[in-house]
Amino acid sequence: MKTIVIAFLIGCLPALAFAQQAQPDFSKITLVIHGGAGAITKANMTPETEKAYAAALEQALQTGFAVLKNGGSSLDAVEATVRLLEDSPLFNAGRGAVFTNEGKNELDASIMDGKSLKAGAVASVTTIRNPVSAARAVMEQSEHVMLIGNGAEKFAGEKGLQLVEPSYFRTERRLQQLQRLQEKENPQPGDSTGTGSTENIFTEDKKFGTVGAVALDAYGNLAAATSTGGMSNKRYGRVGDSPIIGAGTYADNNTCAVSATGHGEFFIRLVVAHDIAALMAYKKYSVKKAAEAVVLKKLVANGGDGGVIALDRKGNFAMPFNTPGMFRGYIKNGESKVAMFGSLGVRKFRR
Amino acid sequence: MKTIVIAFLIGCLPALAFAQQAQPDFSKITLVIHGGAGAITKANMTPETEKAYAAALEQALQTGFAVLKNGGSSLDAVEATVRLLEDSPLFNAGRGAVFTNEGKNELDASIMDGKSLKAGAVASVTTIRNPVSAARAVMEQSEHVMLIGNGAEKFAGEKGLQLVEPSYFRTERRLQQLQRLQEKENPQPGDSTGTGSTENIFTEDKKFGTVGAVALDAYGNLAAATSTGGMSNKRYGRVGDSPIIGAGTYADNNTCAVSATGHGEFFIRLVVAHDIAALMAYKKYSVKKAAEAVVLKKLVANGGDGGVIALDRKGNFAMPFNTPGMFRGYIKNGESKVAMFGSLGVRKFRR
Repeated sequence: MKTIVIAFLIGCLPALAFAQQAQPDFSKITLVIHGGAGAITKANMTPETEKAYAAALEQALQTGFAVLKNGGSSLDAVEATVRLLEDSPLFNAGRGAVFTNEGKNELDASIMDGKSLKAGAVASVTTIRNPVSAARAVMEQSEHVMLIGNGAEKFAGEKGLQLVEPSYFRTERRLQQLQRLQEKENPQPGDSTGTGSTENIFTEDKKFGTVGAVALDAYGNLAAATSTGGMSNKRYGRVGDSPIIGAGTYADNNTCAVSATGHGEFFIRLVVAHDIAALMAYKKYSVKKAAEAVVLKKLVANGGDGGVIALDRKGNFAMPFNTPGMFRGYIKNGESKVAMFGSLGVRKFRR
Repeated sequence: MKTIVIAFLIGCLPALAFAQQAQPDFSKITLVIHGGAGAITKANMTPETEKAYAAALEQALQTGFAVLKNGGSSLDAVEATVRLLEDSPLFNAGRGAVFTNEGKNELDASIMDGKSLKAGAVASVTTIRNPVSAARAVMEQSEHVMLIGNGAEKFAGEKGLQLVEPSYFRTERRLQQLQRLQEKENPQPGDSTGTGSTENIFTEDKKFGTVGAVALDAYGNLAAATSTGGMSNKRYGRVGDSPIIGAGTYADNNTCAVSATGHGEFFIRLVVAHDIAALMAYKKYSVKKAAEAVVLKKLVANGGDGGVIALDRKGNFAMPFNTPGMFRGYIKNGESKVAMFGSLGVRKFRR
């Protein structure tokens, strides 16, 4: 009898799995995004700039949420969202990325699937229009996780991704930012360094403008993606945390999906994204408690500026940051909110 | 009164720290190394090859232990040890590294200091004689953690590291290995693919020959370092886990020092080195239990072949691997042991 019951139960498993697949639950679909953390304050922005950022964040939320609402996967949603932020010249990713010391735009991105733990990343690419899509191609169409430089570009080209001239990524605003930074480094006699436009001081002095998204789809699967131009005026092929699985990006259905932004070196050393997941897995922290423990305590104790977005499988999320501001937003139950400034925003958004 | 006591205790702290520094404890100094995991079996090796590997591992142990015995830091010890393994043509790191699909030797390495959580890494370098020393220079002489490609080479050159012609890394053995792999991929009509030398079948079919070291010095500080040529016949600027902090290398005085070897993609996705540290930190696992949980359970469940060496601050260590063999060894209390084959070795070495 016992054997029969067990056999029956085992026989039910495929049906159960099918039922789960066949009955998507749209009540919990959630998308959370960031557009970088840093010295983002009212004082550092004009009303026009503020409006432009808010509109771009809102558009990104609506774009990604439409994917989820239509039954798309969390992977599709984070990719679509990050592509949009890459295409916007406002953020330090894709078009509008900061310049390296040599006047190039070197881009990094990564993506991770919480269901399979598969991941993909590209680093130091200069001709791939949407690095996040290249990261996804690495994940799905290669046996590798990380491809860098020319090799990654060759791979992306072979897979049919859109390649562009390096000049596509250049914006006048970022070029001027590089020039100001380089003038500060090598002041000429008589230079009035530090004068000129201060509009971008928040990305200039605190060089974080990475973008990222985490999503929960109707099938209960989490995904995370991050994309960046790295540090303005960076040298020597520096790579930050964004393309490092575990540091800037992580997703595991058993815990959470995380995308980070900030002073990448500290995020690498503390393995920030995976540490949040580990606190949930091993100490049973909530996503909020885990994300805050890492961002507001560990990172602060180590001097690492920045923030994360983190989302669990129930749709709970947190957006802690230890900088004056972070471009961020979420959409859930069709209701979206975007914010960029300090602690008021933090309190408002924390759940 | 309470205030006075507290003030007195605080006043004692520097003295205590000095006392700790001034009284090194040599009883626990330990060095553990690996030279790669894979299909390493008696059947796959000649007695001469076995002897050569054992001698190289022994020499690496003695070299690194001499550093520790002389009061050197764990960082100095792991760097010296890994340099020696890089210089040996037997291992897939530095000289003797495997070839990329394009016939180049592209090298990756990383190092981490368990005391400060500082870390350094280089990836895809082709002209730095000792990539592990470049990783250390990145850690100590730059504000970055990871530098890649030409940029990393430029940095290493500026810091006075020894640069060599790319041909320095070439060995006939590895070139033949590449040719055999490429023949297998593109068999010519009439080819008898798979024949020829089978001496290196263990690195050929299972392409792991990474080297690494973890050490505990007389001051109670842990360090870890890893260096590799990556996968034979690799394409598209593929980067594995070795230069990824948290995946192939991690060190934290509060938990352990870890160096990994294996199918890098799985080690990246599972953030293997940091996961071992997290299990110790958050679930209070011993270093042995943590390392085995990740290597013998999680990696196996995900299909990830390989192994790790892991060492805690008390000198406890583990060397689990889920492959037929792993080149490995330890030295402690002046007593050294090296091994390369399967489970007997594992049992013998596990503490």
